[in-house]
Amino acid sequence: MDIQKEFEYRATDVERILVKYLPKESGYQKTVFEAMNYSLMVGGKRLRPILMEETFKLFGGTTKAIEPFMAAIEMIHNYSLVHDDLPEMDNDMLRRGNPTTHAKFGQAMGVLAGDALLNYAFETALTAFDVETEHPERVVAAMKVLAHKAGVYGMIGGQVVDVEEEKQNGISHNRIDFVYEHKTGALIEASMMIGAILAGADEEHVKIMEEVGSKIGLAFQIQDDILDVEGDEKVLGKEVGQDARNCKVTYVLFEGMEKSKRDVIDLSDEALSKLLSLSYENRFLTKLLEFLVHREK
Amino acid sequence: MDIQKEFEYRATDVERILVKYLPKESGYQKTVFEAMNYSLMVGGKRLRPILMEETFKLFGGTTKAIEPFMAAIEMIHNYSLVHDDLPEMDNDMLRRGNPTTHAKFGQAMGVLAGDALLNYAFETALTAFDVETEHPERVVAAMKVLAHKAGVYGMIGGQVVDVEEEKQNGISHNRIDFVYEHKTGALIEASMMIGAILAGADEEHVKIMEEVGSKIGLAFQIQDDILDVEGDEKVLGKEVGQDARNCKVTYVLFEGMEKSKRDVIDLSDEALSKLLSLSYENRFLTKLLEFLVHREK
Repeated sequence: MDIQKEFEYRATDVERILVKYLPKESGYQKTVFEAMNYSLMVGGKRLRPILMEETFKLFGGTTKAIEPFMAAIEMIHNYSLVHDDLPEMDNDMLRRGNPTTHAKFGQAMGVLAGDALLNYAFETALTAFDVETEHPERVVAAMKVLAHKAGVYGMIGGQVVDVEEEKQNGISHNRIDFVYEHKTGALIEASMMIGAILAGADEEHVKIMEEVGSKIGLAFQIQDDILDVEGDEKVLGKEVGQDARNCKVTYVLFEGMEKSKRDVIDLSDEALSKLLSLSYENRFLTKLLEFLVHREK
Repeated sequence: MDIQKEFEYRATDVERILVKYLPKESGYQKTVFEAMNYSLMVGGKRLRPILMEETFKLFGGTTKAIEPFMAAIEMIHNYSLVHDDLPEMDNDMLRRGNPTTHAKFGQAMGVLAGDALLNYAFETALTAFDVETEHPERVVAAMKVLAHKAGVYGMIGGQVVDVEEEKQNGISHNRIDFVYEHKTGALIEASMMIGAILAGADEEHVKIMEEVGSKIGLAFQIQDDILDVEGDEKVLGKEVGQDARNCKVTYVLFEGMEKSKRDVIDLSDEALSKLLSLSYENRFLTKLLEFLVHREK
């Protein structure tokens, strides 16, 4: 099967799992449930849960403990988008062709739905202790990675520097690397690390998956910048040239198009060779990593 | 010693613990660390960590595992204030006589510092697993209570209904009860439950502390409303009559002043008699509960 199609099938599988963990839309606080579920189900590649599940399989994981973490990482990714879209941040009214959460539910509910998703992610992940009773220490380790990579030393840290640089209208190469590694990279690293941890991989292998995740995250983000310059609007489903119009300094601006493309290939090659050096194998994961950095949307 | 003075001493003790868990203000993302630490250290009663620690002592707790949870509950309380003060929410520029976090650091950083505090609360609480190695199941149970009571079925749930009612300019008695129980009550319940859980209390006792916390939370909030009408501005250190000016429907408006005062006493008596029915004793906790509902600020 074509990897693009296979990727989309897996996204549908993830959504079936996600639906199981959604809060019921009832009670006095119904609106926040609606806003949470809206922002979670309005679309997306489901890349992080897919990477998590495939890494879990790579290391021979079989339990259901992975599911609450797959839901949790997608909730965290989505809360970050909801808050990112707020007027005081990127002020976006549309995402994936649909109204953003604050555009649909109001700005106060945008803040609260984001808070709710972040908190609910931890609430959801904690249910893994009920499933993984044989190895609770794995769930502890996975919780720690989730919290660390989502927080000030991970995703939020990257977001802070990104927001500050936009204001200052200029960014150094070191700082752009920091933003890419943290804002995009951290959750991808977390996904692969948690998959490995819950499958019982040893520390060395978890470390390798962190490095694979880091390289893939960086390659993924640079490819995003490239597509914003050279992509086909019909394939992408959105306008190109947005970074330039928003005066956003990207990796491509710093390194030039040619070097950026080379870096994407190099990073992806490094990630793949690390993955293939393991004595484990996962055909889909290998194909997916290759596809991600050569994707056209 | 005068209970007011003793309460203030305990707050200082809590701050000494809190400081140990603050992030260092360095790195590219320095601003968010500054904003987090500012909002955490700018003042406050430290009621929740004090209640947590005293309940822990009540049930004979002695380990250091309580400390990260004391820090975590205060971080969650403070993130909720930071987001509550945002322009799209209550739009407050001053809190405890100082600029609010978004007033000082900008609105985008207000959102991010709140997110960061919420996430860091979980990151901090998870370190209790490193300390409480004999009974990790207690830390698991405490984590679950923390996440549940802070989230959509707890504090955030109450906040959502409060925000919606402000918009609709009217609120039913049932809904106001829901807001009080959730927005204020949930974290106080969590504090007392977590104290009990980490000390190894059995389920029945944890349930009793949840009820004590619920009554205390409600009494505390009604007393707040009363003080906003009848308080002494010099003692309170803030203007009275704010609820009326903001057209906020309070418990006092619904029930009248006389019944409200009676309810505060009844609720506090019920909480105290529940507490005293236990075969454990904590003189400070008993005095504190009594003081809280009769306080003048």
